[in-house]
Amino acid sequence: MAATSTKPSTRRMADAIRVLAMDAVEKANSGHPGMPMGMADVATVLFTRFLKYDASQPAWADRDRFVLSAGHGSMLIYALLHLTGYKGVTSQSLADFRQLGSNTPGHPEYGHTPGVETTTGPLGQGLATAVGMAMAERHMAARFGPELVDHRTWVIAGDGCLMEGVSQEAIALAGRYQLNRLTVLWDDNEITIDGAVSLSDATDQLARFKACGWAVKRIDGHDEGQIRRAMAWATRQDKPTLIACRTRIGRGAATMEGSHKTHGAALGAAEIAATRLGLGWEHDPFEIPEDVARAWKAAGRKGARLRKAWQARLSDSGRAAEFERAVSGALPEGAFARLDAAIAEHTAAGTAQPTRAASGLALDALFGQVPELFGGSADLTGSNNTFVKGTQTFDAPDYAGRYVNWGVREHGMAAAMNGMALHGGVIPYGGTFMVFSDYSRPAIRLGALMGVRVVHVMTHDSIGLGEDGPTHQPVEHLASLRAMPNLRVFRPADVVETMECWKLALERRDGPTLLALSRQKTPGVRTRAMQGNPCAHGAYELAPASGPAMATLFATGTEVALALEAQRMLEAEGVRTRVVSVPSLELFLAQPKAYRDEVVGDGVRVAIEAGVRLGWDAVIGTDGGFVGMSSFGASAPAPDLYRHFGITAEAVADQVRARL
Amino acid sequence: MAATSTKPSTRRMADAIRVLAMDAVEKANSGHPGMPMGMADVATVLFTRFLKYDASQPAWADRDRFVLSAGHGSMLIYALLHLTGYKGVTSQSLADFRQLGSNTPGHPEYGHTPGVETTTGPLGQGLATAVGMAMAERHMAARFGPELVDHRTWVIAGDGCLMEGVSQEAIALAGRYQLNRLTVLWDDNEITIDGAVSLSDATDQLARFKACGWAVKRIDGHDEGQIRRAMAWATRQDKPTLIACRTRIGRGAATMEGSHKTHGAALGAAEIAATRLGLGWEHDPFEIPEDVARAWKAAGRKGARLRKAWQARLSDSGRAAEFERAVSGALPEGAFARLDAAIAEHTAAGTAQPTRAASGLALDALFGQVPELFGGSADLTGSNNTFVKGTQTFDAPDYAGRYVNWGVREHGMAAAMNGMALHGGVIPYGGTFMVFSDYSRPAIRLGALMGVRVVHVMTHDSIGLGEDGPTHQPVEHLASLRAMPNLRVFRPADVVETMECWKLALERRDGPTLLALSRQKTPGVRTRAMQGNPCAHGAYELAPASGPAMATLFATGTEVALALEAQRMLEAEGVRTRVVSVPSLELFLAQPKAYRDEVVGDGVRVAIEAGVRLGWDAVIGTDGGFVGMSSFGASAPAPDLYRHFGITAEAVADQVRARL
Repeated sequence: MAATSTKPSTRRMADAIRVLAMDAVEKANSGHPGMPMGMADVATVLFTRFLKYDASQPAWADRDRFVLSAGHGSMLIYALLHLTGYKGVTSQSLADFRQLGSNTPGHPEYGHTPGVETTTGPLGQGLATAVGMAMAERHMAARFGPELVDHRTWVIAGDGCLMEGVSQEAIALAGRYQLNRLTVLWDDNEITIDGAVSLSDATDQLARFKACGWAVKRIDGHDEGQIRRAMAWATRQDKPTLIACRTRIGRGAATMEGSHKTHGAALGAAEIAATRLGLGWEHDPFEIPEDVARAWKAAGRKGARLRKAWQARLSDSGRAAEFERAVSGALPEGAFARLDAAIAEHTAAGTAQPTRAASGLALDALFGQVPELFGGSADLTGSNNTFVKGTQTFDAPDYAGRYVNWGVREHGMAAAMNGMALHGGVIPYGGTFMVFSDYSRPAIRLGALMGVRVVHVMTHDSIGLGEDGPTHQPVEHLASLRAMPNLRVFRPADVVETMECWKLALERRDGPTLLALSRQKTPGVRTRAMQGNPCAHGAYELAPASGPAMATLFATGTEVALALEAQRMLEAEGVRTRVVSVPSLELFLAQPKAYRDEVVGDGVRVAIEAGVRLGWDAVIGTDGGFVGMSSFGASAPAPDLYRHFGITAEAVADQVRARL
Repeated sequence: MAATSTKPSTRRMADAIRVLAMDAVEKANSGHPGMPMGMADVATVLFTRFLKYDASQPAWADRDRFVLSAGHGSMLIYALLHLTGYKGVTSQSLADFRQLGSNTPGHPEYGHTPGVETTTGPLGQGLATAVGMAMAERHMAARFGPELVDHRTWVIAGDGCLMEGVSQEAIALAGRYQLNRLTVLWDDNEITIDGAVSLSDATDQLARFKACGWAVKRIDGHDEGQIRRAMAWATRQDKPTLIACRTRIGRGAATMEGSHKTHGAALGAAEIAATRLGLGWEHDPFEIPEDVARAWKAAGRKGARLRKAWQARLSDSGRAAEFERAVSGALPEGAFARLDAAIAEHTAAGTAQPTRAASGLALDALFGQVPELFGGSADLTGSNNTFVKGTQTFDAPDYAGRYVNWGVREHGMAAAMNGMALHGGVIPYGGTFMVFSDYSRPAIRLGALMGVRVVHVMTHDSIGLGEDGPTHQPVEHLASLRAMPNLRVFRPADVVETMECWKLALERRDGPTLLALSRQKTPGVRTRAMQGNPCAHGAYELAPASGPAMATLFATGTEVALALEAQRMLEAEGVRTRVVSVPSLELFLAQPKAYRDEVVGDGVRVAIEAGVRLGWDAVIGTDGGFVGMSSFGASAPAPDLYRHFGITAEAVADQVRARL
């Protein structure tokens, strides 16, 4: 069919997505054509009529956010970005789908492709991340007014997203906080990988969302009018909205439409040819007829007018600099003025405190200086010391508050924090017990992969929490979190180190930080002033030996005090011993060799950490001594546990003596 | 009040729980009195009228299961076990609440206390575990008939349990499979740690459960009649049942009833005295008046009659031996007959297969021999190779099937598998992609802590999965899972090793096993017959050097083939090189030193694994070479990724050469 001058139908525009998805997967011989083909009609209506965006300016702060929670359907978003004219998303990009170095990876990856707002693929994450985006939008609207912040978050989610537990946490949060700028377009195709949804699920999803405070509607996801009316309806609700879009997976496929076989594999040359015939699509792979191309490009440009008007409002607002700084993620002038003073003060005082309390003190000194700081806890506020006195709670209708009651939802909290950081204008931190990092781990990982600035405040970081017992005592968590690329794990030793680590967490712009903090009190160990921020090197000599060192003790967190005690014992026996504090093992291992060698030193090496040894051999060697845990903990008062598991100064000294 | 000969009221029996909880927490100066006091009335009705149990025989196979999902309220179950006469749960036990070595740890721990069916504390886990128990019950009833298997599962859950995402996965599963023997008693006290539930939640829980296929009812949780009628109603439903018990947290506390302050701390001497007065309870701490003690003991004995009748039915059934073997967890005679034959056959053939396919072959050889094997996948059946041809699907109404369609619910699946193993009679295994072990991690951990035999089949174990990209590529997971105490992680190298690891997984009775399996094909490397099961040592010399070794290559999984390739290159250059296969790093490190030294050998050491280095220094030392990952992966065909990230035989040889 030759290009015509008439405007193509929405159906034909959607077919462009279908064919691109089908062809790209075929070329890669890998991927998921079923979902893009099924949701092409919904996505076309969204991107041509409702989504506020300007393809030429993907970073426009007041754009609507679009999240493809069903990330395996990545060809849907790549097709949309290509068709609407996002720079760099070329037909070659689509032809290079899933190839090394292309900007069209298997699942959408934040930072790889303009217009991809978040990395998705692990199911449910996109939806939960979107909740954070919608929260950030509400808060920024409260701070800067609707003239500058007035956008929506649209999510396409699949059955898998809704089955994942994290979706429940996200849905309940959105309902509780009445996030009416959030709309979920559920690809209700009744199909999962293994077959019919009914094989494993009988949930009435509309009733479920309604029970959580959402407004819900079911439509035929291939009926343009119904789609339009439903999206218009969504924009009028005072609640988050679910639109269940009944679709056929692989819609348009000649013989495979409706089959789970279209989900995760190329359709094959014969099916593709037959599908082209059925759709009346006579163009080569990755070739778009001119009328369709033109209509799509026009849709991509439509938001430019709105963006320019917004830009003018921003310029006229008198707050452009503040807004732009906040959105850019740059910290305000003097962000650390009070914190630096506190560091000096506590160095001098040698303050003894649980490091979780130290974290509270750090927040006290930061919260007023950094208006983007936005905190919360998964129902452990008093334990996590995350609340700064006088802070208003984030809630409807005004959303000006900067503290979130996340409820017992560690996973949803972590994912939403990612969404806030991605949205911009907010620097999120959130607290829970460290053992529950297991619950939030999939979201911590996505944050590390995306490189977003999020601070995970993880208190009760060892058997030192005492009586709650092994279900609540992290043992393997430090090791397991250190294993994660681009996550920075800090376990500070006292008030001063905790404050220094907080500083590093906020200074960092390219990834998340996790603070492992003690429940129990620990003495001040950093009592002499030092140049710069020694925690930035991951490890440093805290207490030198009385002469050429015969032994070095490496310790983290509350065990640093124990190392110092062992040092005193050993020095009294004439064993010249130094102590190295290791607030971040992986950061230390990333230092230049010269620095590492200097800090590690010669002589006997013993590491002390109330966790497993895994990872420590990289510092102490296979012949080094280790005082820590090799099993799960137990329920008892903390001092009893330290004795029971042999984590004592005496045991440390014994390890040294045995190696001299 | 002196003991009377009349039967005490239910209320007075419940007060015994209240006072014991209050006093034990006070003595420990640690714990959670609010929930036991609030749910005392419900628990009393349950344990005196509905729960089928015999306190003298906690292991009776046909007992009802009681799960305290809100595990922080552990004094509720300890009080009940003490009052009903479970052996060893003495008043001294209660006085030793939360002390080292007592059988009354901070949260209920399976194996520590008779009558504690599962370890709880991490919220939502108990509920999800209970779903597995109820599934196992249905399946065992199908296998052995209602004469031998006819019991219920009762759960007490709190608001936190219902907020956790895993609860949604559990609820949806229970609804889908119409587990009408499962009843959740929700402690609907409108309070969480941070204050009112309404701070963070506005979910209509009844509507939510109903949407998931449950029958629901709300009652006054302090009204004996309502409790009785609701429990009786629950036993008549054809669906799982939720009873929302509206309670007051800390019920009975003189001034603090209804306050979140009763949740997690001792009430204090004054409040306790006043509460005693208010309840008319004039007895010393841990002293129970005789009438109350007698009534409780009678309740604990009531089930003995039912148990004896059951025992008689078992004896008469002609299937006692089979039933008892199945419940005991012992494998049947000849369990490995077909597997051993397959091992021999594939050793001879040198079969090349993806190790996930090898796992499928192992299951083929086991499934018919071990009737307790009970499999499933979180909607990745074809990818995980977990389905054995011809297997019937587990489903209502007959439940005889041995394969579960878990849906996209990795966490709920793992927790339910724990519940099945705890229930007994079933040896569960379940599949997902290895990267999603992050989703199921809290349940994997609980399984390791409890020491239950569960097999986690984790396929797509590295960048070798290719195009799906970094969201789906495990990089840190081997390290992070190896860090977990009592979890055995195997990454077999070929068909033969995979089969041997499956054997070890089933032979193991004291904890879970995780199999890390490849998507991509890998050659047979174990082509010579060996004594015993070499994988049992964690590592072994697979390919000796041509003479005294100058270098040793350590590798796991698909990288073993790569090590062999490097070995050929090096040997050709005259570098005498041996290859050690390391199916389980942590198992190897647990071997006697002499064996470890022998396997590690002298000379240059290089490890190869498509994951992070963390943990490997324990084998190769800080000066050893490592060929693996130090970042997240990328989306591309697998061979491109291996080259891109430098995981090649050439790179291995270079590492050796640089160290010679």
